[in-house]
Amino acid sequence: MRTLTALLITLTFSAVTAAAPLPSWSDNPTKTAITDFVSAVTTEGSPDFVPASERVAVFDNDGTLWVEQPMYTQLAFVIDRVKTLAPEHPQWQEEQPFKALLEGDLDALKASGMEGLLKLVAATHAGMTSDDFARIASDWIASAQHPRFERPYTQVVYQPMLELLDYLRANGFKTFIVSGGGIDFMRPWTEQVYGIPPEQVVGSQIEMEYQVLEGVPSILRKAEIAFVDDKAGKPVGIQRHVGRRPILAFGNSDGDYQMLEWTTAGSGKRLGLILHHDDKSREYAYDRDSHIGRLDKGLDDAESNGWLLVSMKRDWSQVFPPSSEPQK
Amino acid sequence: MRTLTALLITLTFSAVTAAAPLPSWSDNPTKTAITDFVSAVTTEGSPDFVPASERVAVFDNDGTLWVEQPMYTQLAFVIDRVKTLAPEHPQWQEEQPFKALLEGDLDALKASGMEGLLKLVAATHAGMTSDDFARIASDWIASAQHPRFERPYTQVVYQPMLELLDYLRANGFKTFIVSGGGIDFMRPWTEQVYGIPPEQVVGSQIEMEYQVLEGVPSILRKAEIAFVDDKAGKPVGIQRHVGRRPILAFGNSDGDYQMLEWTTAGSGKRLGLILHHDDKSREYAYDRDSHIGRLDKGLDDAESNGWLLVSMKRDWSQVFPPSSEPQK
Repeated sequence: MRTLTALLITLTFSAVTAAAPLPSWSDNPTKTAITDFVSAVTTEGSPDFVPASERVAVFDNDGTLWVEQPMYTQLAFVIDRVKTLAPEHPQWQEEQPFKALLEGDLDALKASGMEGLLKLVAATHAGMTSDDFARIASDWIASAQHPRFERPYTQVVYQPMLELLDYLRANGFKTFIVSGGGIDFMRPWTEQVYGIPPEQVVGSQIEMEYQVLEGVPSILRKAEIAFVDDKAGKPVGIQRHVGRRPILAFGNSDGDYQMLEWTTAGSGKRLGLILHHDDKSREYAYDRDSHIGRLDKGLDDAESNGWLLVSMKRDWSQVFPPSSEPQK
Repeated sequence: MRTLTALLITLTFSAVTAAAPLPSWSDNPTKTAITDFVSAVTTEGSPDFVPASERVAVFDNDGTLWVEQPMYTQLAFVIDRVKTLAPEHPQWQEEQPFKALLEGDLDALKASGMEGLLKLVAATHAGMTSDDFARIASDWIASAQHPRFERPYTQVVYQPMLELLDYLRANGFKTFIVSGGGIDFMRPWTEQVYGIPPEQVVGSQIEMEYQVLEGVPSILRKAEIAFVDDKAGKPVGIQRHVGRRPILAFGNSDGDYQMLEWTTAGSGKRLGLILHHDDKSREYAYDRDSHIGRLDKGLDDAESNGWLLVSMKRDWSQVFPPSSEPQK
């Protein structure tokens, strides 16, 4: 009887662990290409076998792991932050780019250019300690909502990507975020939302300085850009933080082109994937003409570069986690 | 009978896993302070319990994990590299700092200052791809020997520190190197030698640039310092790479002061350790007056800061791994 029980437990357990991976991915060649790749690099004795320590997978964040329309989430944070701080800065009513931002005048905001951006960074991301900024970002992400889906931003992440991250980790991969977004804006919540710890987040950075302030050791955030982790910056960010070349890269815009290029040019089996936003009803449809997440050269070159174009409409049976599926 | 076998297996297994940790550490209060700390932060229900994801431990490299006398290993690499390249650069026979270096004139080398250092960096660490540099560093470390101990540098690492790294990892810690040395000089061998993968190595960095060179995606190393991971740079390097404050820091010189300060100022239980090189016969004895690994302020403040001073002479029963224990 005990043997029978043990057998049943074993069978049940096997059935659970052998559950088909990637349930929110349609059963089609895209899913098969992913699972075939993972089988090839994880099967000992396979000519494509890669030791676990070298199974590095990198993911863009905005538009790849979560929604980036109608604006980058970090820009929504900046806008909310400026509005929150505006009463303490009455001069912002007349000073650009704050005036444009407070009035929702996106053309004037764009016209303020890099100088405007640096002023916004200074006002919202700098001049406080790293601990304080982490708290501000955490508090905001816990309360803000996506304007269309009316759910927290941490619930407009893509269910198929959460499954892919889990599936890769279950197969010995180490998963990294490599985003143009601010590294310290992401880190307070990536572990809880994506299972990716802060030390596996790569992103754009501002300068920081260590100081003992009134006896308290502190890391002070300065209003200077230290590193832009976008386009040709992404392979450099990967080299700086990871120190080895990934074998899988997943992006969605031309900002990810070089990351995919660097990843897939390595020797041995590699996988480059681009998410194509072509699902207006469930999420958004945009590519060549979009100001956010523009995908043009990547769309042209994906086939000749051997990159897999993932169609949200065709390849994903579900877009968001169940509890946050848009009511529409 | 099967039950008895199972019991025996269980007992044997328990005996093995419960083998006293840190065998090369003397049985004295230093060792007890370390094991007490680890017990406190890993015992669920303890008021000092720290979740595994937050168990970050940082280690200086030169003089903490391996020998830094009579000169930093990376300087030995630079010297060898300049000698190797000198035939292709006949002008170096008359050009500082190369002349000084080739003649072993350390005073003239020092006199060349930051400008000289940048020339040496340019000649030995830049102007090639990241892949090429990793190969050069790997080849050198595989063949070079420490002048006194006549063993590869990777065998003049400290056995008690290898045991401590293993012990911490077995207790759910993530171990990081945080070194003033060049990050890409260390990464090719840290995994094999210390069990620390490249993505958990933090160090000084030069600028890099992504380029497609004759069709080959490459990361080019440039002759500009991007980041100096020493002194007040160490907490910043930790914030950049790890994104959370360590709960344990281990250093050996005043270059580690701020790293210990930042670590131990955090809330909850923390442990700061300083290795004191006081063992001339087995290794070296140096502190306040040393040009390399100078330990002055750390020696003064250790007690009032609650940092544990580890005496090599008193606290380590063995210095090097058995196969590389110095013959005399």
